[in-house]
Amino acid sequence: MDSLHNMPPKAPYGKLNIAVAGLGRMGKRHAKTLMYRVPQANLAAVCSKDEKELEWARQFFGADGAVKVFDDYDTMIQLPGLQAVWVSTSTNVHALQTTAAVKKGLHVLCEKPLSQNLDEARAVVQLAKDNPHLKVMAGYSRRFDASYRDAKAKVDKGTIGDAFIVRSQTCDLLDNTGFFVRYAAKNGGVFVDCCIHDIDLTLFFLGDIKPKACWAMGTIAHHPELAALNDVDNGIGMVEFWNGKLAYFYCSRTMAHGHDVATEVIGTHGKVMVNVHPRSNNVLVAGEHGISNEVQPEYWERFEDAFATEAIEFCEAVLEDKPVPLPLELGLKSLEIGWALQDALLTGKVVRFDREGKRLPEGEGAKL
Amino acid sequence: MDSLHNMPPKAPYGKLNIAVAGLGRMGKRHAKTLMYRVPQANLAAVCSKDEKELEWARQFFGADGAVKVFDDYDTMIQLPGLQAVWVSTSTNVHALQTTAAVKKGLHVLCEKPLSQNLDEARAVVQLAKDNPHLKVMAGYSRRFDASYRDAKAKVDKGTIGDAFIVRSQTCDLLDNTGFFVRYAAKNGGVFVDCCIHDIDLTLFFLGDIKPKACWAMGTIAHHPELAALNDVDNGIGMVEFWNGKLAYFYCSRTMAHGHDVATEVIGTHGKVMVNVHPRSNNVLVAGEHGISNEVQPEYWERFEDAFATEAIEFCEAVLEDKPVPLPLELGLKSLEIGWALQDALLTGKVVRFDREGKRLPEGEGAKL
Amino acid sequence: MDSLHNMPPKAPYGKLNIAVAGLGRMGKRHAKTLMYRVPQANLAAVCSKDEKELEWARQFFGADGAVKVFDDYDTMIQLPGLQAVWVSTSTNVHALQTTAAVKKGLHVLCEKPLSQNLDEARAVVQLAKDNPHLKVMAGYSRRFDASYRDAKAKVDKGTIGDAFIVRSQTCDLLDNTGFFVRYAAKNGGVFVDCCIHDIDLTLFFLGDIKPKACWAMGTIAHHPELAALNDVDNGIGMVEFWNGKLAYFYCSRTMAHGHDVATEVIGTHGKVMVNVHPRSNNVLVAGEHGISNEVQPEYWERFEDAFATEAIEFCEAVLEDKPVPLPLELGLKSLEIGWALQDALLTGKVVRFDREGKRLPEGEGAKL
Amino acid sequence: MDSLHNMPPKAPYGKLNIAVAGLGRMGKRHAKTLMYRVPQANLAAVCSKDEKELEWARQFFGADGAVKVFDDYDTMIQLPGLQAVWVSTSTNVHALQTTAAVKKGLHVLCEKPLSQNLDEARAVVQLAKDNPHLKVMAGYSRRFDASYRDAKAKVDKGTIGDAFIVRSQTCDLLDNTGFFVRYAAKNGGVFVDCCIHDIDLTLFFLGDIKPKACWAMGTIAHHPELAALNDVDNGIGMVEFWNGKLAYFYCSRTMAHGHDVATEVIGTHGKVMVNVHPRSNNVLVAGEHGISNEVQPEYWERFEDAFATEAIEFCEAVLEDKPVPLPLELGLKSLEIGWALQDALLTGKVVRFDREGKRLPEGEGAKL
Repeated sequence: MDSLHNMPPKAPYGKLNIAVAGLGRMGKRHAKTLMYRVPQANLAAVCSKDEKELEWARQFFGADGAVKVFDDYDTMIQLPGLQAVWVSTSTNVHALQTTAAVKKGLHVLCEKPLSQNLDEARAVVQLAKDNPHLKVMAGYSRRFDASYRDAKAKVDKGTIGDAFIVRSQTCDLLDNTGFFVRYAAKNGGVFVDCCIHDIDLTLFFLGDIKPKACWAMGTIAHHPELAALNDVDNGIGMVEFWNGKLAYFYCSRTMAHGHDVATEVIGTHGKVMVNVHPRSNNVLVAGEHGISNEVQPEYWERFEDAFATEAIEFCEAVLEDKPVPLPLELGLKSLEIGWALQDALLTGKVVRFDREGKRLPEGEGAKL
Repeated sequence: MDSLHNMPPKAPYGKLNIAVAGLGRMGKRHAKTLMYRVPQANLAAVCSKDEKELEWARQFFGADGAVKVFDDYDTMIQLPGLQAVWVSTSTNVHALQTTAAVKKGLHVLCEKPLSQNLDEARAVVQLAKDNPHLKVMAGYSRRFDASYRDAKAKVDKGTIGDAFIVRSQTCDLLDNTGFFVRYAAKNGGVFVDCCIHDIDLTLFFLGDIKPKACWAMGTIAHHPELAALNDVDNGIGMVEFWNGKLAYFYCSRTMAHGHDVATEVIGTHGKVMVNVHPRSNNVLVAGEHGISNEVQPEYWERFEDAFATEAIEFCEAVLEDKPVPLPLELGLKSLEIGWALQDALLTGKVVRFDREGKRLPEGEGAKL
Repeated sequence: MDSLHNMPPKAPYGKLNIAVAGLGRMGKRHAKTLMYRVPQANLAAVCSKDEKELEWARQFFGADGAVKVFDDYDTMIQLPGLQAVWVSTSTNVHALQTTAAVKKGLHVLCEKPLSQNLDEARAVVQLAKDNPHLKVMAGYSRRFDASYRDAKAKVDKGTIGDAFIVRSQTCDLLDNTGFFVRYAAKNGGVFVDCCIHDIDLTLFFLGDIKPKACWAMGTIAHHPELAALNDVDNGIGMVEFWNGKLAYFYCSRTMAHGHDVATEVIGTHGKVMVNVHPRSNNVLVAGEHGISNEVQPEYWERFEDAFATEAIEFCEAVLEDKPVPLPLELGLKSLEIGWALQDALLTGKVVRFDREGKRLPEGEGAKL
Repeated sequence: MDSLHNMPPKAPYGKLNIAVAGLGRMGKRHAKTLMYRVPQANLAAVCSKDEKELEWARQFFGADGAVKVFDDYDTMIQLPGLQAVWVSTSTNVHALQTTAAVKKGLHVLCEKPLSQNLDEARAVVQLAKDNPHLKVMAGYSRRFDASYRDAKAKVDKGTIGDAFIVRSQTCDLLDNTGFFVRYAAKNGGVFVDCCIHDIDLTLFFLGDIKPKACWAMGTIAHHPELAALNDVDNGIGMVEFWNGKLAYFYCSRTMAHGHDVATEVIGTHGKVMVNVHPRSNNVLVAGEHGISNEVQPEYWERFEDAFATEAIEFCEAVLEDKPVPLPLELGLKSLEIGWALQDALLTGKVVRFDREGKRLPEGEGAKL
């Protein structure tokens, strides 16, 4: 269940004037989430460059001007009274748009990952540090999911002893419409776009630990077009950390049964599991085939409530001037590991890091 | 997942001016649901006779008057511009308040059951019929739950052949605070207050069928105070219908593990089950005890989304002048069966009905 | 897992010379169980009147005479050296054959139920009492199943507090071959042949309690031929006991998904469940339909190990002259309740018992 | 369920005179399995060097000499009439004893792995090839488990399309008695002793494929003594195969909840899972902690039936002169991969293989 009803008794709610950039699948959902499920938000504007999306927006938001519709991001962020922007475009413009918003003095909630390019991502993190009066937050939705939070609480209170291994997978429903292949070209390889959630969860559960070495392997089961992008549609990676903790990941774009996102945290005295048997709801059907349950088709059905919680907590961080729950640096660290795995996949070689977690040049740092 | 994001693209939303009567556990929740999760609603007023609840309301809703706080129901329903009221008080005043609201020309969403008294309930149903311009709806929240709706859709499309048996249970977490015993005195016996949901689900799944006979038995496991109310804390009942369909129910107030509400619909070619293994979320814990999941403590955690959907659909029915999804008569029929079971429990005798589903005097209607 | 490997270190095993009467589905299985899984048994003979079954036996057991094949029960029990017989024929000759064996001085393991006729059953129980040097045991296989025994151990050690309600169901896979309809004619109605296991489990879990009243209802979903037998293919029954404990049952012959036998024992501080989600093994399949498991097609796949344990314990009781784990009287009590439910089904009336559990004439004993 | 009752109708059963070498935990179990669950076997002898074990054997098997008890392996295999031996000693003498038995003209069922030393293992495989009239079989019990066989049948008939990834784990209950640490010294590192089952299952499900590269990592969570053995108590490994198929493994000696052995086979159109939620039986307990099931403490409880099936099929292979279900070479291949993972764990480096699956010297074969 969402946290909506735990909100403190406060009236009238201060409301944050916020805009949504991008009106693709997620942009539309974020706009509706802000309107319908975030009492602390006032959706002030939306923007897109896509004519179909703009058409949708004009119809959906109507002509009364309560929600302004822009066909240009830079124009939108000039809107008087605007306080924040939720960047929901494709990854290749995340850094650019976040930078522009911060420079304009806006708070930013930026979808993960910050960038496909590590240097660019580092520059945005630095910019955010240089503007400590602005809240700039990385959008890793799973940290706002009730089950992941319950698991985290259990780990923190010692239910499983000392947590030392994470297994995590992000497996998407096979998409044969061609949408995914187009999407992949703009959103980075499987370890940067998809596994990055699992890496983030590893840091969530195991703490702020430094990678020591990683390796990856992958295969193309359904989408030959990915070869040209140096990518695969099924990838497996392992990361060893300097304090002896371990993580291993499986990411797939080709599941027949639905969105199958699962995480196990193994400790010295137990194990916490999240969603190891995915179920779309509480229904079972018994028939000649046996007994079955359906599975959510995509992450939206699994994480809809988490996105609402994420938006509520971002708005509260701004309105009450509290630290954001997920600072931008955290996203950067996951991105560095994601890239190391993607490079290991490409080269077949182990990627190693020094004791500070800084990546070493190829060939250095091997165990004696 | 809730239906929020399936709402039609319409802006600005027409909003229904609605008040909440009663600010107990559920009244508070309904007020928040209307504020935060029902874009079609404008929470105009709340009322309570309880000083603590009023104090809470004054603080929560603030002094700006956007939500007016009343200490008297009859005064509240005079509020100019008010269009509807959500009756969330204890069962013993449901009928009275619904009647007053209808007479005042307000639409009403009334929590189940309409009354503990069948004649009173029938009078309200008649009043609603006499005022067809008003929407008067029975609040059976399970019909708005995503899992129950999925099960219903499967039954309707023939997944299990012809549905002919329902097993349904409503089992509440044991409450040792004394709250439940006080609650029971005002809300009716186990078959009227609790099993009535299971009866309603039976009609939902098996259609508009006529009861033929029923029997019930029960025991007191934890709450000896119930004996004075002619009630039990664990009751089991069976209902045979004239078309050969069957239903059997188990209701308990004394579960150690949480709110355990489950339903099975058995058909000629399969079975659909809702929540036969209750889980509060997607988390499992493995440890020395084995592998375990937690269970929702009460119906709110299980049905929070359903209440939001119920409110949304009620508001839409009014705003768009559509039939309400759950007309008041339906609640009446469940109540008649609930009372038959409660009487069978008390007398130990079979209660029988004629072919129209009208209850027969004791001793009449036995087979042969 | 079976208890085979917990057997005491004892060599050479004393072996009991035992015969199997009846070579239908179960007779064949029992013969093999004795040969392959019961080191304490020496299968000495088998018998059948069916020519096909005899043909199978001659081929299977070969010509070396180690296992003698008879076409007549009365001749078989004259076999010199024979010590015991496992009666696996149809219900209508159980009592007759058990009587003959006891009179011949043989120990008997008799499949449930002892008889369809209560007086006949009582006579056999009396005969067994009059021959205390012989072990005469009722074959209720579920009491030998590892899961039911684990559940019983948990109930006995107080895991769920004081057990006070049993819900139990015996639901068989739909059989469209005609076998079941022929079987039904010789094996008694649904509450006597099928529900009797659930009644036995109720006494297993709740102890030696006296019935007070019961009622039943049923319907025919697939087998219209049952109407002529005064029977149904789906029956539901409830039993109230004098000490306030309760049981309710569902028996079906028409499941689409397999053999679905489940039991819940509800206590004041918890609930133990056996097989509420039936699974034929540890395999799950994920695909376009979601995630599914298969279900055992019939009770043999579910209870194969239990039958071996039952045979082992019967042999040990004889060889070591210990009381049998399931004395014949226990089966009689279940049968009395089974018949009361069957009669309630037929008449639509409540059947009542006095405080000793003795059935009252119709119309007597109603609650005041 | 076991396959006992599917055995062909054949009487009298030919019986294989077989001995068990080693009477540790598993040796005792194998001796009993042969006695009680394998009608095709005649347990002729057992041997051990351990005085306690011998004492147990003398008592258990008695003085009648039906089962001869030896304190020396070489003497035992001279027993006249002996046809086969089941080698159940610790890994460090498997090869030696298998060699001696083959040279003596006995059929051999040898527990996995054949040896900790690859050259020694290869020599035994060669010896077996040179003696084609003898059946020499590798004891990988999981291939005889009903669930794994069901999964394999589903993969073979195309239920999941083309299988291309295996995830498999072998996780043992934490043992704090010191037994495991002593055991580890004689039975090889985690990838050779434990993961080898998962490697074997990979070949079972994906076919006879050639490894291309592998990497591993591990950590010590509970048993510091393992450091001196160049071993860990939690290891994770990945293997890439030349045809693009992939496998990844997790082995642990430190589970709090029991023996947790699970396997997933991922295909282009579905996924088959074995035991992803381990359950020791069909029982669930609901209480204040939620709802829980227990887990098998060790592999015996999980695989007892599989060992019986393995023994039956080995005996049948000998008696009917059929190929053994699991030729020795197969075990060799798993061992080669197991050692590659163990070396990768130790060196931190990727181990690579040529296109024939032959291991390359360190540093060679890296992807371009």
